[in-house]
Amino acid sequence: MNPEKLALLTDLYEFTMANAFYQELPKEEGVFDIFFRNLPDNGSFVVLAGVKQAVEAVEKFHLSASELDYLRELDLFSEEFLAYLADFQNQCEVWTIEEGTPVFSGESVVTVQGPLIQAQLYETMLLNLINHQTLIASKARRIVASAKGRAVMEFGSRRAQGPDASIYGARATIIGGAKLTSNLLAGKKFNIPVAGTMAHSWIESFPTELAAFEAWARQNPHNCSLLVDTYDILNSGIPNAIKVFEQLKTEGVDANIGIRIDSGDVTELTKKARKMLDQAGFTEAKITISNALDEYIIESILDEGAQVDNFGVGEKMITSSTSPVLSGVYKLCAVKHEDGQVEPKIKVSASKTKVTLPGIKQVYRLYNTSGQAFADVIALRDEKLGHSLSVVKADPLATKKEHVLQDFIAKPLLRPVLRGTKRVEELEGDVFKIQANSQAALKELPAETKRLMNPAIFPVYVTSKLNTLQKEMLAKH
Amino acid sequence: MNPEKLALLTDLYEFTMANAFYQELPKEEGVFDIFFRNLPDNGSFVVLAGVKQAVEAVEKFHLSASELDYLRELDLFSEEFLAYLADFQNQCEVWTIEEGTPVFSGESVVTVQGPLIQAQLYETMLLNLINHQTLIASKARRIVASAKGRAVMEFGSRRAQGPDASIYGARATIIGGAKLTSNLLAGKKFNIPVAGTMAHSWIESFPTELAAFEAWARQNPHNCSLLVDTYDILNSGIPNAIKVFEQLKTEGVDANIGIRIDSGDVTELTKKARKMLDQAGFTEAKITISNALDEYIIESILDEGAQVDNFGVGEKMITSSTSPVLSGVYKLCAVKHEDGQVEPKIKVSASKTKVTLPGIKQVYRLYNTSGQAFADVIALRDEKLGHSLSVVKADPLATKKEHVLQDFIAKPLLRPVLRGTKRVEELEGDVFKIQANSQAALKELPAETKRLMNPAIFPVYVTSKLNTLQKEMLAKH
Repeated sequence: MNPEKLALLTDLYEFTMANAFYQELPKEEGVFDIFFRNLPDNGSFVVLAGVKQAVEAVEKFHLSASELDYLRELDLFSEEFLAYLADFQNQCEVWTIEEGTPVFSGESVVTVQGPLIQAQLYETMLLNLINHQTLIASKARRIVASAKGRAVMEFGSRRAQGPDASIYGARATIIGGAKLTSNLLAGKKFNIPVAGTMAHSWIESFPTELAAFEAWARQNPHNCSLLVDTYDILNSGIPNAIKVFEQLKTEGVDANIGIRIDSGDVTELTKKARKMLDQAGFTEAKITISNALDEYIIESILDEGAQVDNFGVGEKMITSSTSPVLSGVYKLCAVKHEDGQVEPKIKVSASKTKVTLPGIKQVYRLYNTSGQAFADVIALRDEKLGHSLSVVKADPLATKKEHVLQDFIAKPLLRPVLRGTKRVEELEGDVFKIQANSQAALKELPAETKRLMNPAIFPVYVTSKLNTLQKEMLAKH
Repeated sequence: MNPEKLALLTDLYEFTMANAFYQELPKEEGVFDIFFRNLPDNGSFVVLAGVKQAVEAVEKFHLSASELDYLRELDLFSEEFLAYLADFQNQCEVWTIEEGTPVFSGESVVTVQGPLIQAQLYETMLLNLINHQTLIASKARRIVASAKGRAVMEFGSRRAQGPDASIYGARATIIGGAKLTSNLLAGKKFNIPVAGTMAHSWIESFPTELAAFEAWARQNPHNCSLLVDTYDILNSGIPNAIKVFEQLKTEGVDANIGIRIDSGDVTELTKKARKMLDQAGFTEAKITISNALDEYIIESILDEGAQVDNFGVGEKMITSSTSPVLSGVYKLCAVKHEDGQVEPKIKVSASKTKVTLPGIKQVYRLYNTSGQAFADVIALRDEKLGHSLSVVKADPLATKKEHVLQDFIAKPLLRPVLRGTKRVEELEGDVFKIQANSQAALKELPAETKRLMNPAIFPVYVTSKLNTLQKEMLAKH
């Protein structure tokens, strides 16, 4: 993925609309929000990711000569519009929530304001980048939580949905708390430590398992995690591994030793493996497992007493297989007319959950004096919160009873990062710093909100002022 | 995705193994098969895709200076091995089944033979490309079948798992039978017709729905599918659309008219919409629907009599959401020693379904004299099939009773496409030709094998010779 080559990573209709906006409403500005409705795995929040790539894609939006030719050949666009595209320079302002932040359903996580012609064009590209990485970071967060402090390594490249899914997916798993990846491109690009030793093919290429292990130890004493399940884990794999570890010890080689199990009932196998390794004096040998793991399996086997140091997690994390779609949307919330007047906009629907929140908004996280977050509030951006705040539940299906919030410290989550061609704020580039920020923000949330099954709902409100605006606009339609 | 930049799209362990092979077994050749075990959506076959990109990735395998520096910095590889990588030239031979072919569980779809050092390095990259596109082409085949001749348009870019997933996913949906995509990059790259008109934001940007429709018709009479569900489909959207169609008619504009519905109960709504359009004299107006569709929903609503001309299918096709992982594997099946001797290899497992088929293999599709396929046979590549063939079921869980097959025309499916740096066969580049080939191959299969729910199992056999080899090798372990 090259952020300078994503301008056509979009649906045709963004361009047919932009062309028609160019003719019909060239001076109008639009304000669009990205937010999530249903969250994956029935979670109560997602971990926002993909922000850096999304902002860069807007910043570097550019059509090459061959792309312009392609658009011309479609015979759908005016020459004036094509000329406009050839000279394209971003004029939009982009606000985002910091990458790695846990965010809740309905909260604006990205806001784009600028000429309708431009802001419309960014929709598909932004949603693709944000939906994908947020989905995978959120899945990784769950898997890492289930591992209770043990290392989670991302091993999913071969089953990811294409090259970008493996590379940017690996990035997202680090944001969600994974420690390493097996993917070299991701390792190189994002400075993530990489992990891996051998596959079954290594073992099978030698006359015996022992010969394969010995050859491995000769070449890789410092990276000597032996795959023990090619033939028979307990009767051949582990005894052979122990022989090799003993050899290394005898020879006084400074080695990093361990075993990996990729099949079978890992609870029983790892218990027995641990015992065999310990009895042979190799208490430092690490046990890695890597067989179709996800948060549910990891939680179960740890409950059963499995003896595992590292989890190599593949397809189920890199595709978020139990919930493979995040349905972030990009919705118009206001139009700024030529005369400067801002008119809030709303999408009406027979389904309450699909009605949008009108107006340009800010999202606040409210903290008590001990630094614990206890609620989020969606407000109009130009509202002053004051010391006492009248709100209603944001959930479109909740009763709209007024609550008064007091004694809070409110932190605005959306910040301007890009204005036209000018970066207002540098985005964090170090994925482990994003991970650390994410974990700090997760610590501020109540434990019950982070439960993997049936988590408690964290209170998210809209201000009474915003609620009134929505009610009035709905009444008009 | 750039096929010249995929060399590091891989797991570290491919490189640690290659490095160790370089030291320990530099002259040995390996033979690896790609095959699928469990198939998505409980289908009886998958539609093979991604072959062109996979072969190009091998052909163009190359490490840049910065990639070599990165590998060096990992401090895991010998300088000799890094020098070998710097001068890397593919020496492997690649056999593949033609892209678009329906293939069954256990059949080798790609075979790579060459220096272990090299063939090992291709594993993750090949699996990523083949698994992803085959998954999506197979899902598209199902969705297209459910649409019973109506057009399926790929609309999933915003929910695809990253940019490549949207672009190559769109390619795969065409192989599976889709007619158009909304994705411009895919349209440009693969010469796929693109589709799209407007989103809700277009409607909301105007004071009234009618004004939005009129402005659209002014700008796009030839691409005039109006989105009618922003406010109220039956009381506002369709009546306003009809007004605009009447205006176009009055003005004598040559227009392509239609409506799109993106929410609500589409069965009832499309029936009413069709009636309203027909009564107004617009029998030619097309009805498109696009709300979270997949093969199950399409089948249901068509059974209920929904009036639909085009299906815009999004997230559920581009992610194969009901079955988002295809678990293709790359397994060593033989080693060719320095002396030229070929030794078959097998992966043993406590689970019967994980035991591999040893030896270098060919896959045959068997036809009766009227051109209907009635079975597949997996044989050793050097076997002669003759007129009468002794086989057993390939399913690892089936009883291994011998059958004799006669009166067949056997077509070998695996063909050599690349030998070292030489292309032996050009691969089809036109996705619609691949689609046509795929549909011709699908026609040859029995209808009951293509059923969406509980399909009949198509008979796949292994020759008695191959079965005996496997039995003997298992007995040795």
